[in-house]
Amino acid sequence: MSEKPVRFGILGCASIARKISRAINRAPNASIQAIGSRSIDKASRFASENGFPASAAVYGSYEAVLDDPDVDAVYVPLPTSLHVKWAVLAAEKKKHILLEKPVALNVSELDVILQACESNGVQYMDATMWMHHPRTAQMREFLSDPQRFGQLKSVHSIFCYNPGPDFLINDIRIKPDLDGLGCLGDAGWYCIRAILWAADYQLPERVTALPNPEFNESGVILSCGASLSWTDGKIATFYCSFLTNLTMDLTCAGTNGYLHVHDFVIPFQEKVASFYGASNSRWVNFGCEPTPTKHKVATDLPHEAIMVREFARLVASIEGNGLEPEKKWPIISRKTQLVVDAVKASIDRAFEPVEVGNY
Amino acid sequence: MSEKPVRFGILGCASIARKISRAINRAPNASIQAIGSRSIDKASRFASENGFPASAAVYGSYEAVLDDPDVDAVYVPLPTSLHVKWAVLAAEKKKHILLEKPVALNVSELDVILQACESNGVQYMDATMWMHHPRTAQMREFLSDPQRFGQLKSVHSIFCYNPGPDFLINDIRIKPDLDGLGCLGDAGWYCIRAILWAADYQLPERVTALPNPEFNESGVILSCGASLSWTDGKIATFYCSFLTNLTMDLTCAGTNGYLHVHDFVIPFQEKVASFYGASNSRWVNFGCEPTPTKHKVATDLPHEAIMVREFARLVASIEGNGLEPEKKWPIISRKTQLVVDAVKASIDRAFEPVEVGNY
Repeated sequence: MSEKPVRFGILGCASIARKISRAINRAPNASIQAIGSRSIDKASRFASENGFPASAAVYGSYEAVLDDPDVDAVYVPLPTSLHVKWAVLAAEKKKHILLEKPVALNVSELDVILQACESNGVQYMDATMWMHHPRTAQMREFLSDPQRFGQLKSVHSIFCYNPGPDFLINDIRIKPDLDGLGCLGDAGWYCIRAILWAADYQLPERVTALPNPEFNESGVILSCGASLSWTDGKIATFYCSFLTNLTMDLTCAGTNGYLHVHDFVIPFQEKVASFYGASNSRWVNFGCEPTPTKHKVATDLPHEAIMVREFARLVASIEGNGLEPEKKWPIISRKTQLVVDAVKASIDRAFEPVEVGNY
Repeated sequence: MSEKPVRFGILGCASIARKISRAINRAPNASIQAIGSRSIDKASRFASENGFPASAAVYGSYEAVLDDPDVDAVYVPLPTSLHVKWAVLAAEKKKHILLEKPVALNVSELDVILQACESNGVQYMDATMWMHHPRTAQMREFLSDPQRFGQLKSVHSIFCYNPGPDFLINDIRIKPDLDGLGCLGDAGWYCIRAILWAADYQLPERVTALPNPEFNESGVILSCGASLSWTDGKIATFYCSFLTNLTMDLTCAGTNGYLHVHDFVIPFQEKVASFYGASNSRWVNFGCEPTPTKHKVATDLPHEAIMVREFARLVASIEGNGLEPEKKWPIISRKTQLVVDAVKASIDRAFEPVEVGNY
């Protein structure tokens, strides 16, 4: 790497920031420049516990990170309700933004963020790590192959985990003033993104929430699901939960092919991930042929480090070469949020069908 | 085996009867006694092509099979619209009935069949083969374990195949006068049975069809899906299709466990079948532990032969030992039909939620 690494500032000491700090350390074109927390002690402890370079600045506020001229980009894992304020301020300070999901409480908020990024010429990307795994590219190639997969007809995604009683009392993801979308914004975000990804980011026409969502005492969603339908006849369903054992399956069925992943959100192993695919299966004698093939995809870097590397590459091409920010990332982030919002609206309307982006 | 084998008569020469003929030949307590078809030539050809014993009778009508005093039980793979007539007649002739699915066009028809079986003291079983695979028993044990699986929260099942243009023009499964339920009665039957099986046969309260079912020109369902909900908060979804590559996945998520099968309807291999299970998975460092374990279950006999063996065992215990017919099979068959009917009703009512058994 002849180019200077992109220098990251981190806003807050969220648990997920440990993973992304490690990713920044491992990405060849990125470095950790600063961390800020409302408590400087907490920030110092976080820096020392997570292998920050000695050169990294430690601040007692988020503002200080944004004011640091040596910070090129910020990673924002703050509670969702704080995203508008800090992402907009970061954009105004010309910091590129890697924004943790859920990116906003609704699409109106997200539009404020995206507008700020656009008018300040900074790159925006949501931190959906699995998008960047090389397995994802191979699966995309499979789904896009008319012979091997054909037309997409049905998708099912599920992301659940059971973080236990302490999480359900104390975590920000179940607090109405911090992450009001609860499980829908957290685990549901991945399910919806996977469906949109499989549908090549074509927005569904309608969304209908499934019955029986579960809520905590404050009305925050702990589990829910929905069906999505497209005008071309495709259908998708998803389910997400904070009350169910870890499950992260994705099943795509096409006219000519089948794809299944057991661990689409976070591969069970860091260095190799697999998916199952079958094409043109037929009943032969008393069974079927061919049976699904297990495809293994190796990676040197974990997917979160590849995400950081790709984000940093885009930032470097803006800062160094004067290119425009890559629009793909804000576009698919906004589509994901539109579907999140529609699911929420359908839940609020007793599971009535809701037109995406129009209710 | 000291006991005499149960002697089967087969009504008609449906393609699936080839598989069940082989199963009867392989089951240690069953034998093929007769086959009847409207065309005696067709019946003769079927008998010789499918390894029938020389002693097997070949008849030019279904009645003749039912009138053969050496026939103990009949296997009925006729088009669904003929089930009431021939199953009732078989019961009246004191023949035990292994009935191909879909068992009836609706629960009223099925009740006529079940009533005839009950009043004539004959065993009834629907021919849902995977129920009898030893893998199914092992999966049941896993799902019933409070530590390893806990409370069932979500189920998704999908059974699709793409039989191609000839099927879509000529097969009985797409003819409104023969199998009016189309794909819902065929592939959907398996999906619904799998969900009920996972829910320990507790009927869902409500069923809501998914948008975008596909129909042929005669209005027969070629693809559809539904969500099912229970009063305890469980949720299930399924999708079935004649227009999509072979897919037969089942995913069950419980509070403490996860179960996935790639091939729940027909295992990819006859002699060994597998499923994936995980329990009490937790985020550990940057991944999760434990990851799902692949459980392999070996079987000497294919599942359809085990089904025949179990059916014949029940028949022998009625005929030989004077026991009552096993009620489990009519009960779960009726529950499956109730859900099939509710899905059909929801489709007919533009995807309105429908109370199961009450519309």
